[in-house]
Amino acid sequence: MASPGPKSPALQTNMDVDYVISYRFATTEKETAIKRFERLVYALSPVGLATEVRNGNKHSLLVFVKVASEEHLFGEVYRSRVNDWIHGVRSAAPEKETRRALEAEPLHEAERLRIIYQLITNPVTEGGAGITPKEGEWKNVESVFALHDHAYNKEWIKKWSTQYLLKPKDLDEIRDRLGEKIAFYFAFTQSYFTFLLFPAAFGFSAWLLLGHYSSVYAIVNCLWCVIFVEYWKHQEVDLAVRWGVRGVSSIQTKRRDFKHEKETTDPVTGETVQVFPATKRLQRQLLQVPFAIGAVLILGTLIATCFGIEIFISEIYNGPLKSVLVFLPTGILTTVMPILQGVLTNFATQLTTLENYETDAAYETAMTQKIFVLNFITSYLPLALTAFVYVPFGQIVVPYLDIFSLTVRPFAENEKQLQAPRSGFTINPGRLRKQMIYFAVTAQIVNLGMEVIVPYLKRQGFSKYKELQSERAAKRGGTAPSPSESDAQEEADFLARVRSEAELDVYDVQTDLREMFGYLSLFSVIWPLTAVSFLLNDWLELRADALKICVEMQRPTPRRADTIGPWLDALAFLTWCGSITTAVLVYLFRNDGIGPDGTPYSIRGWALLLSIFASEHTYLLVRWAVRIAVSKMDSPGRQKERRERYVVRKRYFEESLTLVGQMPTMAQAAPQVDRGSLEEEARRESLRTFRPEEKFWGRQRGWQETALIGAGFIERAVPDEAEGEKVQ
Amino acid sequence: MASPGPKSPALQTNMDVDYVISYRFATTEKETAIKRFERLVYALSPVGLATEVRNGNKHSLLVFVKVASEEHLFGEVYRSRVNDWIHGVRSAAPEKETRRALEAEPLHEAERLRIIYQLITNPVTEGGAGITPKEGEWKNVESVFALHDHAYNKEWIKKWSTQYLLKPKDLDEIRDRLGEKIAFYFAFTQSYFTFLLFPAAFGFSAWLLLGHYSSVYAIVNCLWCVIFVEYWKHQEVDLAVRWGVRGVSSIQTKRRDFKHEKETTDPVTGETVQVFPATKRLQRQLLQVPFAIGAVLILGTLIATCFGIEIFISEIYNGPLKSVLVFLPTGILTTVMPILQGVLTNFATQLTTLENYETDAAYETAMTQKIFVLNFITSYLPLALTAFVYVPFGQIVVPYLDIFSLTVRPFAENEKQLQAPRSGFTINPGRLRKQMIYFAVTAQIVNLGMEVIVPYLKRQGFSKYKELQSERAAKRGGTAPSPSESDAQEEADFLARVRSEAELDVYDVQTDLREMFGYLSLFSVIWPLTAVSFLLNDWLELRADALKICVEMQRPTPRRADTIGPWLDALAFLTWCGSITTAVLVYLFRNDGIGPDGTPYSIRGWALLLSIFASEHTYLLVRWAVRIAVSKMDSPGRQKERRERYVVRKRYFEESLTLVGQMPTMAQAAPQVDRGSLEEEARRESLRTFRPEEKFWGRQRGWQETALIGAGFIERAVPDEAEGEKVQ
Repeated sequence: MASPGPKSPALQTNMDVDYVISYRFATTEKETAIKRFERLVYALSPVGLATEVRNGNKHSLLVFVKVASEEHLFGEVYRSRVNDWIHGVRSAAPEKETRRALEAEPLHEAERLRIIYQLITNPVTEGGAGITPKEGEWKNVESVFALHDHAYNKEWIKKWSTQYLLKPKDLDEIRDRLGEKIAFYFAFTQSYFTFLLFPAAFGFSAWLLLGHYSSVYAIVNCLWCVIFVEYWKHQEVDLAVRWGVRGVSSIQTKRRDFKHEKETTDPVTGETVQVFPATKRLQRQLLQVPFAIGAVLILGTLIATCFGIEIFISEIYNGPLKSVLVFLPTGILTTVMPILQGVLTNFATQLTTLENYETDAAYETAMTQKIFVLNFITSYLPLALTAFVYVPFGQIVVPYLDIFSLTVRPFAENEKQLQAPRSGFTINPGRLRKQMIYFAVTAQIVNLGMEVIVPYLKRQGFSKYKELQSERAAKRGGTAPSPSESDAQEEADFLARVRSEAELDVYDVQTDLREMFGYLSLFSVIWPLTAVSFLLNDWLELRADALKICVEMQRPTPRRADTIGPWLDALAFLTWCGSITTAVLVYLFRNDGIGPDGTPYSIRGWALLLSIFASEHTYLLVRWAVRIAVSKMDSPGRQKERRERYVVRKRYFEESLTLVGQMPTMAQAAPQVDRGSLEEEARRESLRTFRPEEKFWGRQRGWQETALIGAGFIERAVPDEAEGEKVQ
Repeated sequence: MASPGPKSPALQTNMDVDYVISYRFATTEKETAIKRFERLVYALSPVGLATEVRNGNKHSLLVFVKVASEEHLFGEVYRSRVNDWIHGVRSAAPEKETRRALEAEPLHEAERLRIIYQLITNPVTEGGAGITPKEGEWKNVESVFALHDHAYNKEWIKKWSTQYLLKPKDLDEIRDRLGEKIAFYFAFTQSYFTFLLFPAAFGFSAWLLLGHYSSVYAIVNCLWCVIFVEYWKHQEVDLAVRWGVRGVSSIQTKRRDFKHEKETTDPVTGETVQVFPATKRLQRQLLQVPFAIGAVLILGTLIATCFGIEIFISEIYNGPLKSVLVFLPTGILTTVMPILQGVLTNFATQLTTLENYETDAAYETAMTQKIFVLNFITSYLPLALTAFVYVPFGQIVVPYLDIFSLTVRPFAENEKQLQAPRSGFTINPGRLRKQMIYFAVTAQIVNLGMEVIVPYLKRQGFSKYKELQSERAAKRGGTAPSPSESDAQEEADFLARVRSEAELDVYDVQTDLREMFGYLSLFSVIWPLTAVSFLLNDWLELRADALKICVEMQRPTPRRADTIGPWLDALAFLTWCGSITTAVLVYLFRNDGIGPDGTPYSIRGWALLLSIFASEHTYLLVRWAVRIAVSKMDSPGRQKERRERYVVRKRYFEESLTLVGQMPTMAQAAPQVDRGSLEEEARRESLRTFRPEEKFWGRQRGWQETALIGAGFIERAVPDEAEGEKVQ
């Protein structure tokens, strides 16, 4: 433990605190608040956690929690490791002597914090304190969070901002500090970054040399996507073994909100289990179909309408206020879209809750699927409309956009401005590329800004606002005691820091990368520089996320995971779709979609479908081959796993070998021919001459006799060989 | 053991014989033959096998082998079970006391025979006698086979020929007698039969009610194929668990013919392993591509030529000898095809050997893939040509068949007979159905005949021939001693039986069902009665195979398996292809392929491709849904497995629980507040007042103090609640 230095001592020590529980009582009656608080500290005591309480901001208390005895914590660690072993996460049982077990595998910070968190939140029946933040009798428990290690955070940010590539060691460090779930996210982002180097370089060359909509670029890009997805699956297993978490996803935690319909006896364990009928769940799951259709219709209509308005205004309309009206669709989208998305996400949550899953993992997967549908529409429909409706069918569809002229009629100065130049309308083939560049560059920059800069400004403004408020309150001589009033001198800085950490948001792993991957796999043939943009974005994203965790968020509670989760399926699906959209794009826009006579190529349905068919089946074939190739690859993690299994097997075998050794071997049973045994046999035979089996086996004693008699048979037979052969 | 009854005693007893080794020395010199024979019986002795030798037919000896001591065999069984457990095939270790282990799980006949066979054939280093029939120094060992249990066989045949459906018990019995590999084959055939009941009934109704090329039938049939394949995968796991062989395919036996290129140290076990570089193998595997192309070209050309000739003769040619010439293509096919197939299969074997696989399983898989390509062409190309070339493009292609008129010119009586009625040629839409009926009915009957009746006749004729020969030899006073000359009176019948069993062929699991499944999935929309025909065929096939095993073949050596093998992938592939061909067939031939004006519909490329696209993606979607549904299904086998695992886990947990119990729990560490400890702490604190952490944690002793102080904070804060809320 570092002794407090002269400079910013508050950042140097966490006062041995393991967790801080923020208890907020602003809207609770005094007696209830006191009673509940008493229950809280009382609940923490029997699981061996020491507590200290201090004042918090805005009617809250901060309960500091630490482990009362390291020795006892080790007991918990051992129990957890035994449990892992029984569930097959570890191939070898932990060393039986605790000290030795911890020496062999030292307890890292994330494991320690995870186990203490479990002690606080696990149900009493499982040996925890049973504290469930924001729920039931623990409604006042606002959050349970660990304190940042500022010295490490500073070092981390400094290191990452000066380093181009992350090393495996860096990821291990994240895992040791923040747990496997976050480490997996960083590992994936890092792996994605490394993989992006190739399409970025190739995309740049393609952009320079191959021209737009190059089929060569399309093939290489598709192949890259396949390899990336398959390689990541391989990598994931390797990391899971390296971090000792392979199989943790099979240790499923039961959802607290699961409502059972009946109780039955488990045919396996004989225990009573709570069951919700699968058929009933299936019925509810079928609601996903109308949900998906509804989402497509609602979001699709909005996007298509805005798209139509935009084209009408920018390419047909010629009246007044054009420069202002051009922003109308963007305005509609940015205001209405988030509202609709919010409503639909809310609806999806309700639907998933209704589906009543038994485990957290199943719930999360079901929710992710629904979110994916929503994201898919909002992310890719605008581009799809341009590529697959506007360009091929523009000549037919665009004239119908005249209906919008009714809307702008009030602004029109004369009828002429409203008349669409029906014959003169030509498709703008540059439109698609512009849109793609917007999504690949502009939107990413805006996103990054929203993620990093906006919260920073918000925080700055908020703290300024609070300062002003405090000043005003002091002027009014307000009676509200400052939370820091009762702070001891030497703790003041530390407590101020904890109070500000208590106000921060809870970090959740981001899923932006899925969206980027989709643009790359589905549409990057439109603009081969897409990967270059994403490469930069990814590099920044990694750093921005690290910064976010360190500065803007509470320290995340370590969680275990052995995969990046159900998003992986989304990546595979996007790659598959990419094989189709890319084929269509290349077919439609080869040579910029302009035929030799300057008008778009006439599209032949069979040729388009044939290219889809060929492309998709090539994709499936290549995926199959890549899977086989990747499955043959070895990796340090897999070797480690096999070595562990081998050791375990060997030990088992040696243990049972002593027993096997006691078993008589067949070799010991080889019949010994000596006079005694022969005589004995003869005697026994004479007693029971009626068993033909005895007689049969009594003719030759031992292999020597068999060999002798056999030789006799051969001797007699061989001379006739020539004739025998002839007779045959 | 049944005592020999008065009737056919030879069929009542096997003389306690476990295995018979047939030693043939017809083409070996006398001394060598004697020496090798001596080595054979000598090798059998140290592994605890007793031997007897008798004369065999045609310059051969029959070595009878039995286990010398049951007690010692049990040791081997125990060893084998421990090995299974270590490889994860069994979830629980076998009982430590042998007697008890065998009582808990009695040794069934197949297990006994399998273990004895291993004793004979395993290398000496692994505790076997190292006898490898027909190879190296054991070139004279023609075969190693067990004797039929005729009493059981008779009962088996009788039972099956009077019973419509096989029960799980019947399959268990086969497994107990003949081992898991054959039991799996029968289980699959039986499962296929049960599943066929539905498409047979539905196909019959479709044939009556829906007309030809019904899209409803097509959809139902495709769905059925998907469900069958997925269900069988599920069933397979269940059976493997039931028979205790789940995972045996992972115990891979090294191929004897594997040639290593270098030796490296295994990073896992530290042992020296023989390695063949994967890249080199890949290079050789790439030869499969020219092989497949070559096979397609060669077989395709043959089939297409015969097809062309047939159409020319039956539909264009009008000259003399038409009634004879019509059989020309069939004649060519039946003579040339088997030769070509033989050559190509031989080539495939060489290619697979060149690929130099390390394990038997990998070799078999690679070989199966190649055979599948050959079978695919010969089985389905004729139908595909009619459906996808003759009908749609007949009008264009058929006139070119004129070239054949050059061939028949010598037979022509006048020029007119050779002139194709170019304008008059119409496609014969009934042709496809006739062809389908041929493959679904006629060919199956012919096959069944070839499989059962021909060998029977052959055997009858052969024995007649040998009888005549013996008589002739006797007349000539030949010196060739009859093998039965030296037989003891009471053994004569038995030995005669063994001699005839020694002449029989070795049974290998048939793969006909794959071919049938292909017709059903790919083409049955042509003729919905296909399934009815296959249902009958399958019923007969099951019985015919049982008969074949009992009568025509040596008793098969029991082998273990946990799957029907790589053919399962072929079934999945055929189902996938079926989703494409069925769509094409329905599109091309809806309403019998005849438009309202009596000529074939004009085919629109985009519509055809669109129906393929829709059908294939529906297939993929349905397969995904069916997989999920099937994966949710429970089964007795799975329950058994989970129960066993649960028991093992529980035992482990209880074993380590004693240790876990010794670990201190966190609850024991709950701080006790009493005067003494408070004073002690105060003293310690005064000693080291400089550590701020100590000070921080020293303020509140125990949860009671924390609760008290927290209550104070709340007390002071709450009155300001109203204002606090306002200030916020």
